[in-house]
Amino acid sequence: MTVRDLKMDLAVTPVDGGVSAPAGFRAAGVACGIKKSGGLDLALIVSDTPASSAAVFTTNKAVAAPVIVSKARLAASGGRARAIVINSGCANACTGPEGLETSEAMADAAARAAGVDLLEVLVASTGVIGVTLDRAKVLAGIAAAAGALSRDGGPSAARAIMTTDPFPKETAVEITTAAGRFRVGGIAKGSGMIEPLMATMLGVVTTDARISPALLRRALVAVTDVTFNAISVDGECSTNDCVFALANGASGVTIGEGEHDLFVEALRQVCEPLAIAIVRGGEGATKLVTIDVTGGASNDEAKRTARAIANSPLVKTAVHGADPNWGRLVAVMGRAGVAFDLERARVQIGDVELFAGGRPFDERAPRASDHLQGNDVSLRVDLGTGGTGVARMWTCDLSADYVKINAEYRT
Amino acid sequence: MTVRDLKMDLAVTPVDGGVSAPAGFRAAGVACGIKKSGGLDLALIVSDTPASSAAVFTTNKAVAAPVIVSKARLAASGGRARAIVINSGCANACTGPEGLETSEAMADAAARAAGVDLLEVLVASTGVIGVTLDRAKVLAGIAAAAGALSRDGGPSAARAIMTTDPFPKETAVEITTAAGRFRVGGIAKGSGMIEPLMATMLGVVTTDARISPALLRRALVAVTDVTFNAISVDGECSTNDCVFALANGASGVTIGEGEHDLFVEALRQVCEPLAIAIVRGGEGATKLVTIDVTGGASNDEAKRTARAIANSPLVKTAVHGADPNWGRLVAVMGRAGVAFDLERARVQIGDVELFAGGRPFDERAPRASDHLQGNDVSLRVDLGTGGTGVARMWTCDLSADYVKINAEYRT
Repeated sequence: MTVRDLKMDLAVTPVDGGVSAPAGFRAAGVACGIKKSGGLDLALIVSDTPASSAAVFTTNKAVAAPVIVSKARLAASGGRARAIVINSGCANACTGPEGLETSEAMADAAARAAGVDLLEVLVASTGVIGVTLDRAKVLAGIAAAAGALSRDGGPSAARAIMTTDPFPKETAVEITTAAGRFRVGGIAKGSGMIEPLMATMLGVVTTDARISPALLRRALVAVTDVTFNAISVDGECSTNDCVFALANGASGVTIGEGEHDLFVEALRQVCEPLAIAIVRGGEGATKLVTIDVTGGASNDEAKRTARAIANSPLVKTAVHGADPNWGRLVAVMGRAGVAFDLERARVQIGDVELFAGGRPFDERAPRASDHLQGNDVSLRVDLGTGGTGVARMWTCDLSADYVKINAEYRT
Repeated sequence: MTVRDLKMDLAVTPVDGGVSAPAGFRAAGVACGIKKSGGLDLALIVSDTPASSAAVFTTNKAVAAPVIVSKARLAASGGRARAIVINSGCANACTGPEGLETSEAMADAAARAAGVDLLEVLVASTGVIGVTLDRAKVLAGIAAAAGALSRDGGPSAARAIMTTDPFPKETAVEITTAAGRFRVGGIAKGSGMIEPLMATMLGVVTTDARISPALLRRALVAVTDVTFNAISVDGECSTNDCVFALANGASGVTIGEGEHDLFVEALRQVCEPLAIAIVRGGEGATKLVTIDVTGGASNDEAKRTARAIANSPLVKTAVHGADPNWGRLVAVMGRAGVAFDLERARVQIGDVELFAGGRPFDERAPRASDHLQGNDVSLRVDLGTGGTGVARMWTCDLSADYVKINAEYRT
């Protein structure tokens, strides 16, 4: 199933509130002193009633303590969670047994403060790797956040999970369908950080639809694949990445097998803009680049090509310099390890075809350069195999500021 | 067989002359107007007598015309070549049937000018992709180079294959063994280019040892694996990469099966410094980084980890900023797709261990930072599997100049 091809009767209305937009959710963001700047650094999100839960975790084998704890509790609860606690400013990764105890203590404290079962809590951390998380500060922050929980707290939670993201990332929509009306809200954080170490991403999606944990998980995986897993800032994969979903059923709308595709589309309405916002706020980014690959032997081969392009420093620097350097795209297509036919391949920048039939059209380069001057760049390539494999990914340009941010942030 | 572990009776003496240092080789570098700067842009290397030949080519499927021609002639001649012609300033890649005809014409002209059989020629080009190579200029250059061939021409050939490499790369050694005395010489070009598009590399190795084409090929593949294929500037793979070897036997020393390992070591004496010089001259590079991986489940897994580290923008920017940011190394080890045990893994910068037993040693960070201030940086990581897999790679730091060179080179 590809999300993009869905045709369905579904009206989407943007609403305010982020993760607290769906009925029955409260949230808060507070400052507890983990960030040296004194900014918001602890978020708590709570469902008033039992909720289905699902999560997607980093595939990095150097897995951070909060990821270990969240995986264990989600498994033990059978996919039921009501509270999510997240701190920013410290990743609590590579911190040994003491770090693991701190994550357990965070989860326990959040459960007690929110009045939910110990297993009904998910925990996440983001920030510097290898630094001990101050347990006293984070526990005091959880108590403060529990006292501040409100129906209007989504935006403060979105701010509290930022590190030095240039802007908060939140979105919420109301979905109207034949089955009724429900809401989906989300927050995310990405890269654009002066202090932290990774292009770390965290995401939380809430909904007042009623759905089983298994179906929620299937939908979350499908949506993550074409949103959060279809972006790259610098090709790095963090020790802390995770996306959490909570569904509490407060809307009265029930999602069953028959509504699965519709629900996937509803989730995508929230996750795609969050994913794109992470790229727009990428470290040093000045341009959003949408990469469309066609003509792959399979969707998988098309995605592998899209990923290679998204992570190519030569493509990303060319985009930064507004240089319609299609030769770099052809070279990446040729090295992506997929079926490729140079004679039938095509390369398009904006709506300008620069290479086709084995030959360049350099006289069109000025028009392509005009397109690259903008903040929204489209790169389309066809692998020339005649296959039907397609993929879309989003990335950003590579600027000297990326180097500056990551080379000099401690100096 | 690992080249590094060889213990053998072999004396190595550096000599001048690059590719024309071995007996029976002449070379020349001339300017024929392909480079707008007017610099040397055409190299010709000729053996006075028949020679065995071997080559290693790019694995990129967007293969340039000269690579197609060289592969075909090498196959048709059964591994015999006497002349190599190389132009810089234009890659003759993605240039259609006309580009292929130009490469064929270059090879034919070089054969006639050097007085060798049409099949005994290898051809290479390096520079901008997708630009037509001026056939008249390059053919005139070949005629001029043939007239300029000399025993002292190695250094001018080394300069003629540069694009805007910051310095020429050449080396030559005399090998003294029980079997006699022979020489190996080499030139290479890398990245450090203002104009061209890729981290393109070309290499030529000459020797006056006598060796069969099959054995020469086996030795060249073994050496390339631990030298030219063990470096990375930016993880890109060009359309034009190739390494050529010629062996004319003029020294009277014959290399058979029994001397294979010794010959591999002799080739390595030339190829390793050339490979390292390519990294030192990498685009925007200010530091040479040697990466040693131990504790891999296999050599292949260790090499995959070394490659992931060598291409990690976060590691490379940290090195650039002299930030002993071991967390970034752990994160790359965890995402490299190989067996990894966080609790037993180790990370060392210079001789300073910063992470072991699942715990950081941040009090040692200042000493590691001192090491990173230098121009030669050592990163050692152990994957913690208890396996014997090892690998070494060389890379450079990622600087704002890399971005500047690649974003702004046409403006």
